[in-house]
Amino acid sequence: MKVQNYRQVQTINAAPGVTMRVVAGPAEKAPTFVMRVFEIQSGSSTPFHAHPWEHEVFVLAGKGILKSDGKETPLMEDDAVVVLPNEKHSFLGIGKDVFRLICVVPLVNGKMPGTPATD
Amino acid sequence: MKVQNYRQVQTINAAPGVTMRVVAGPAEKAPTFVMRVFEIQSGSSTPFHAHPWEHEVFVLAGKGILKSDGKETPLMEDDAVVVLPNEKHSFLGIGKDVFRLICVVPLVNGKMPGTPATD
Repeated sequence: MKVQNYRQVQTINAAPGVTMRVVAGPAEKAPTFVMRVFEIQSGSSTPFHAHPWEHEVFVLAGKGILKSDGKETPLMEDDAVVVLPNEKHSFLGIGKDVFRLICVVPLVNGKMPGTPATD
Repeated sequence: MKVQNYRQVQTINAAPGVTMRVVAGPAEKAPTFVMRVFEIQSGSSTPFHAHPWEHEVFVLAGKGILKSDGKETPLMEDDAVVVLPNEKHSFLGIGKDVFRLICVVPLVNGKMPGTPATD
């Protein structure tokens, strides 16, 4: 069992203007999935890409846009998002505040999947 | 891909004074894990119990206590919690505001595990 404020966790520069903190994962011996907190500066985004694993996302603060194939969906606090495997997606920060969200991914072969770390 | 504000999702009475909303799971075709939002009234709690699957939790609002074997840990907004398989635990709401948290569990045989629904 482990409790930590997400701000105590080391930040990883996941993309320009995008940081990631792994708040629950292999370091805590989590066996199935990994919880990360992303902070996306206004005007910055994660790459527009797809991969074989899913995302489950919860928006904590700020405003953003979820880009998918042919569509842009506004996101705000308290929105939950499911991105299924192989769906193209990107999360873009907009507005004056940092766009902060939780993104959960499955472990793949016991590790957090993806290169770069934004996957 | 699906986007929804968690308040749009049907509430399930998970225990006295405790509601659960399944914001990402089998209904969204999520293949590996399930994201739920719990709202725990002050003085109410989830059962003190253990089960073979883990929890990854993120506190959204309010204050609470994580009870484990021989220990009580205060929880507040922005805390991340890992409860490993078979660790005894209970989440108790305290203070004046509703204690709101995300709790992610793995799918077991393609279903959200647990009876009652608070597991």
